[in-house]
Amino acid sequence: MSEIDWSESEKVVAEEAFGKAYNRETEALISEVRSRAGDISLLEQVWNLHDYLSARRHEIDGKYDYQYSELIFALAALVKQGWLKIEELSGLDKDKRAKIGALARM
Amino acid sequence: MSEIDWSESEKVVAEEAFGKAYNRETEALISEVRSRAGDISLLEQVWNLHDYLSARRHEIDGKYDYQYSELIFALAALVKQGWLKIEELSGLDKDKRAKIGALARM
Repeated sequence: MSEIDWSESEKVVAEEAFGKAYNRETEALISEVRSRAGDISLLEQVWNLHDYLSARRHEIDGKYDYQYSELIFALAALVKQGWLKIEELSGLDKDKRAKIGALARM
Repeated sequence: MSEIDWSESEKVVAEEAFGKAYNRETEALISEVRSRAGDISLLEQVWNLHDYLSARRHEIDGKYDYQYSELIFALAALVKQGWLKIEELSGLDKDKRAKIGALARM
């Protein structure tokens, strides 16, 4: 996929899409953390929360640290996970959107 | 300190003291986590909570995983940190209590 060219306007579209997905995912995470923390009454649940945060941090750090060569896969992952809608990528050319859509359905 | 002998009744006193300190400290931790989580509105604060839990987990895992040879130090640390009162160790012999008290004041 690294041979795919990204126009300047497509880079803007991709960055905005990433920004939207990032905001949605981090808001959902904050909400989840507040909810889980509110239910804690045992030390074991504190450590479960710690494990959960370790996993989410690793995942989020990796997912949003993209390079253009991996952008198709990164955007497809966000669509698949529901953080982004394929319609929000309408500024990308047809081939890229088709690839992202296909990968997201895998 | 490893040459100090612990009688069976002293072991019971020490274990009960550990249990009390452990309960107090874990209740305080749970309360702190609930309070911190309730204030979270930014992703950065989520990761701050994660860092805090990593540090506390490491500390608590180490502190309560004691061996009798290290018990004087472990109990002194708990007294110093306020999780245990020296009066709660009245079942220990005078020398041990004196050492624990001295270490706790360091």
